[in-house]
Amino acid sequence: MKDMPTWIDEYHKGSRFGLNGKVLLKKNSKYQEILIIETDFYGKALMLDGCWMTSVRDEKYYHECLVHPALSSIDKKSHILIIGGGDGGTARECLKYSQVSKIDLVEIDEEVIKVSKTFLKEIGGGAWSDKRLAIHIDDGVKWVETTKDNSYDVIFIDCSDPSEFSNLLFTDSFYKECKRILTKKGILATQSESPESFENIHIHILKSLNKIFKLSETMYSFVPIYPSGIWSWTFASDEELNLSKVNYKEVMEIENNCDVWNLNFQNAAFKMMPNKIVKKLNS
Amino acid sequence: MKDMPTWIDEYHKGSRFGLNGKVLLKKNSKYQEILIIETDFYGKALMLDGCWMTSVRDEKYYHECLVHPALSSIDKKSHILIIGGGDGGTARECLKYSQVSKIDLVEIDEEVIKVSKTFLKEIGGGAWSDKRLAIHIDDGVKWVETTKDNSYDVIFIDCSDPSEFSNLLFTDSFYKECKRILTKKGILATQSESPESFENIHIHILKSLNKIFKLSETMYSFVPIYPSGIWSWTFASDEELNLSKVNYKEVMEIENNCDVWNLNFQNAAFKMMPNKIVKKLNS
Repeated sequence: MKDMPTWIDEYHKGSRFGLNGKVLLKKNSKYQEILIIETDFYGKALMLDGCWMTSVRDEKYYHECLVHPALSSIDKKSHILIIGGGDGGTARECLKYSQVSKIDLVEIDEEVIKVSKTFLKEIGGGAWSDKRLAIHIDDGVKWVETTKDNSYDVIFIDCSDPSEFSNLLFTDSFYKECKRILTKKGILATQSESPESFENIHIHILKSLNKIFKLSETMYSFVPIYPSGIWSWTFASDEELNLSKVNYKEVMEIENNCDVWNLNFQNAAFKMMPNKIVKKLNS
Repeated sequence: MKDMPTWIDEYHKGSRFGLNGKVLLKKNSKYQEILIIETDFYGKALMLDGCWMTSVRDEKYYHECLVHPALSSIDKKSHILIIGGGDGGTARECLKYSQVSKIDLVEIDEEVIKVSKTFLKEIGGGAWSDKRLAIHIDDGVKWVETTKDNSYDVIFIDCSDPSEFSNLLFTDSFYKECKRILTKKGILATQSESPESFENIHIHILKSLNKIFKLSETMYSFVPIYPSGIWSWTFASDEELNLSKVNYKEVMEIENNCDVWNLNFQNAAFKMMPNKIVKKLNS
């Protein structure tokens, strides 16, 4: 039966998005249900607790937008922290920059990493064997709280939607702790949910980061397998946030290897706030 | 049974997007199967031949992007042609401009208009009773072929995906006929499919319009209920295509009434071409 193609759907506010394929794995970890499906068009895809996390076909829409605005523009980028990111895609994009010397990837669920290494090799790619990547199975909130000041140049929050065990990643106190452990010109980069299907939490994230950091900017783009297909990423810093100020030679190389991101695309994406969100933020 | 909530899905390349609700209507017209569902989050939604066309919640993502780049920037906009657009949303957005004096809406399927007037009142709104709107139940290709030169300031192609009875709306010969019936500085505005889920036809449209018109530009934005959620609209003209050159006073008024579109959003959306499409167009 395991080999029979079947429909697996994510349900969200009276809509559902399903992929058809063979379920390669379905198991419960300590934290969540993990499912891997193999599909024709999207390739292999990962679902956690009923929500699509990533697929081989469209993961670049997400990972390239989370990583490159921060890393292509920041001068010092030797120490990176990734909170979540157990599929390896964020680490893979970070490792394209030769100046990155150390990445701490802090994932709470060891099973997600094991499953990704086994079934989603295309996503993590060479990252798993790169000596610059250190994997820590730990609670991201605890990790940040116990890290000393000025430790990281960039922090990526690559987490799932708010839930019982990820809620704390969306709080003011967590963002303040992130700020404390960033270097002086450091950047916090976080996925900031969908302005359409998670409007309230989206606005909450923007307002929180805007309050806690001197500078913050939000970009909007596409993630086909996420609810509504509209997604956002927010970047915050206390010193400098000049996300279009890049080393062109380096960026050209990165662009050549990207499916979605390029500098023009990025600069535009920072202005793609739907008008109804503009109105709500200004009201 | 008609009143029981049920799942209605659009299937596309091994994925499906479904809405849950009460099916208010399901019938076959001369051309296609027409279905109306009433949902909690998306409001009422229209499906034609198994493809979602529009919903009350997210129709503005589509209609505002098709209409405002052309009408906010063109000087002379008295005569408008809409091919398709039977739900009334495109006409409604056009009628926000006082300089629009006449709209010919040419829809092949009379049933779509009847159903929209009955079930999707929120979408057509006051358009149906506006004296500037003339409805013609006719074949858009034939209409264009039999129209005399220089007849319209703007033509909107507001059609469904290529199919047996809409294929001709995507051909070079049709685009050339559109060009012939446009006024000297006229603009052709067409939905141009998804770069993700209809990549080949998307690239075909861009290349055709680029070849046939002196100027053409494509914008990318979101339509949550369409396959992949990424959609595009292309604008073409032989004389002038300065889509960000607007009458600010007028645009401010339009913006205030838009959920998605504003001038910043628009200018950005014209640069949101995913890098893989950039590469394919340049190869």
